[in-house]
Amino acid sequence: MENIYPQIIGDEESINGKETFKAKSPLTGAVLDANFCDASSEEIDKAASLAEKAFKIFKNISTEKRALFLEKIASLLEENSEQIIEVCMQESALPQARLEGEMGRTCNQLRMFATQICNDDFIPEIEEEVLPERVPPRPHFVRKYIAIGPVVLFGASNFPLAFSVAGGDTASALAAGCPVIAKGHPLHPHTSYLVGKCIQKAAKETNMPNGVFSLLQGKSYKVGEQLLSHTKVKAGAFTGSLNGGKALLKIASNRPEPIPFFAEMGSVNPVIIMSDALQKSYEDISAGLINSCTLDIGQFCTNPGLVILENTNVINEFLNRVKFVTDNTSSGHMLSEDISNSYDAGIKSLSDSGFIDIVAQAKKENIYAEGRPCVLKCEAKYLIKNPDYIEEVFGP
Amino acid sequence: MENIYPQIIGDEESINGKETFKAKSPLTGAVLDANFCDASSEEIDKAASLAEKAFKIFKNISTEKRALFLEKIASLLEENSEQIIEVCMQESALPQARLEGEMGRTCNQLRMFATQICNDDFIPEIEEEVLPERVPPRPHFVRKYIAIGPVVLFGASNFPLAFSVAGGDTASALAAGCPVIAKGHPLHPHTSYLVGKCIQKAAKETNMPNGVFSLLQGKSYKVGEQLLSHTKVKAGAFTGSLNGGKALLKIASNRPEPIPFFAEMGSVNPVIIMSDALQKSYEDISAGLINSCTLDIGQFCTNPGLVILENTNVINEFLNRVKFVTDNTSSGHMLSEDISNSYDAGIKSLSDSGFIDIVAQAKKENIYAEGRPCVLKCEAKYLIKNPDYIEEVFGP
Repeated sequence: MENIYPQIIGDEESINGKETFKAKSPLTGAVLDANFCDASSEEIDKAASLAEKAFKIFKNISTEKRALFLEKIASLLEENSEQIIEVCMQESALPQARLEGEMGRTCNQLRMFATQICNDDFIPEIEEEVLPERVPPRPHFVRKYIAIGPVVLFGASNFPLAFSVAGGDTASALAAGCPVIAKGHPLHPHTSYLVGKCIQKAAKETNMPNGVFSLLQGKSYKVGEQLLSHTKVKAGAFTGSLNGGKALLKIASNRPEPIPFFAEMGSVNPVIIMSDALQKSYEDISAGLINSCTLDIGQFCTNPGLVILENTNVINEFLNRVKFVTDNTSSGHMLSEDISNSYDAGIKSLSDSGFIDIVAQAKKENIYAEGRPCVLKCEAKYLIKNPDYIEEVFGP
Repeated sequence: MENIYPQIIGDEESINGKETFKAKSPLTGAVLDANFCDASSEEIDKAASLAEKAFKIFKNISTEKRALFLEKIASLLEENSEQIIEVCMQESALPQARLEGEMGRTCNQLRMFATQICNDDFIPEIEEEVLPERVPPRPHFVRKYIAIGPVVLFGASNFPLAFSVAGGDTASALAAGCPVIAKGHPLHPHTSYLVGKCIQKAAKETNMPNGVFSLLQGKSYKVGEQLLSHTKVKAGAFTGSLNGGKALLKIASNRPEPIPFFAEMGSVNPVIIMSDALQKSYEDISAGLINSCTLDIGQFCTNPGLVILENTNVINEFLNRVKFVTDNTSSGHMLSEDISNSYDAGIKSLSDSGFIDIVAQAKKENIYAEGRPCVLKCEAKYLIKNPDYIEEVFGP
């Protein structure tokens, strides 16, 4: 097939899957050129087996050498930054300045872990005194942290760099001595591939064992499920939605050998505004709040989704101000059409509840994958009675 | 019904369940007098609701006051030690000296946590410097541990004191500010009740909130399942078999809100004997090994279940010595008839494998719930090919 980007499996590349997919531009809905494959069962097995072999060597490599590997990844990402960010803009519709900042953060994370693991006191070893005279006698006893084994990483759609293939989870797993098999997010496969190639190259250049890193692509959930179920995989890491995270947690826990699954999942990020503060500076607060809510079209994981405040005498001024700011905010392209549709459905479900009202909504611009800032209000007592409505609606 | 021992629910007692049960003496098989009930759904709900209410107060109580509570439990256990140990001997067939040691350990654990939580540096608070000039600016940032909420504790059959109702899990949960709902093990309900009454009394005497502790009995798995599934329960703690622990882990992970489940489960406790050491002192090693394997009829969680050694020229002397020591070891009463039957079935399954042979087996004494020390051997290559045989067979 023309122009297929391969899986990265240790030192090699592989094209073996049957199902192909392409990413779409969230700016226009146009299908992008680059062609990708769902990883096959053989590829999943090969990546896991190589990772298991690599683990036996990698866990015993000195922290100084592991630090060089992490630093090399950061340098290669910086060298290739221009191309990666260009591709990432096409796949994510996130603005250039934001992605430049995210690239900086990604490299900082890698370097931070490199520095940390070279500190003597980073991995504490607890050693207890021998007490042969005690009843019962206490033997020589040492407690220390050891690497757990190959880790499967699930990249996030909304942070295609800092919480994806070379993100914080990868940096920490590699720092700890665990090989990483990254499952690339299907919304940015090309970005994942370019980042994955930097890690593969860094591993070769710093003489890391073959299999210390692999990148498997997949649009179907099956790729991730099979990976997390593989007996040679010993932990999972995830950033994404509550439902996605919980589905994967079940797989990790229901294996014959359950494994730890570290998930950073969606949240409404509740914000409490104290009445005194509101009284004094409701204009600044409303501007800051709406700015925070709409930053990158509300796709930040720290995006405030629930604001709690008392019904005081400035509440109407505050809400008017919120309405004014929101009316003057533009809508923008979300990460994908599906995400935009979920957002619209979430807003509809809230406003159809009968007790939640729309305060303000930015003008509809009829652009592709539109995310249209919206503020709703509700008396607290109704939400307390209907806690299902206190669920994240991902968006602005 | 005559002579029913109630559930302990906060400050009160309750008899509401339909299914009653009695423990059996593992010494004779005789049914013991004391009558117990499976906790009803209402009782489970009441204990969880009280625990949730108590949590709001208990988590904010000073560590000094929580320490007094823990110390009071230890004093009351010591005051009632004679009666508790007598009942526990009847229910567990464990010898008096062992239970006295276990009672000492139980009280030490409680006092150790009491001391620990009063140390200033016990719960580290990580506070990061404000950096308003940094890009992006770093706000005031504090990270600290907070109590998670009501904890359900599953007591172990083989440590009816130190890993049961007032054991280490209870001590640590209470120390952290989490109310505890203990699910008593059905093999020692009377012991659980007496220990539970000490905790209830300690809570009252040190003015802890009502619901900080409850004890629910149950022979049916349903009691534990319902407890762990309750929305107001926020964590589980368990000591016991691999299968039991994994079944409960599934429940904890598959809840709409998954909760952490801390399980200390069975293990073969592999022991490696180095060839040099064996050469020098195979007599001492064989005596020490068999002593460790048969301590309390092999029902210690640190009981060596798999010994790995090279096939050197002293192997036959070593095995002969092991046989001699084992032949001169008595069998004894296990914790229950079921446990004894499982042990016999486990030995049979190993010796029926075709590649695992019995080296030595103590004389059959035809006592109730007999646990008969047994040593088997196998070439490593067969076990590596058949890893299912490397599973714990609980017993001597």
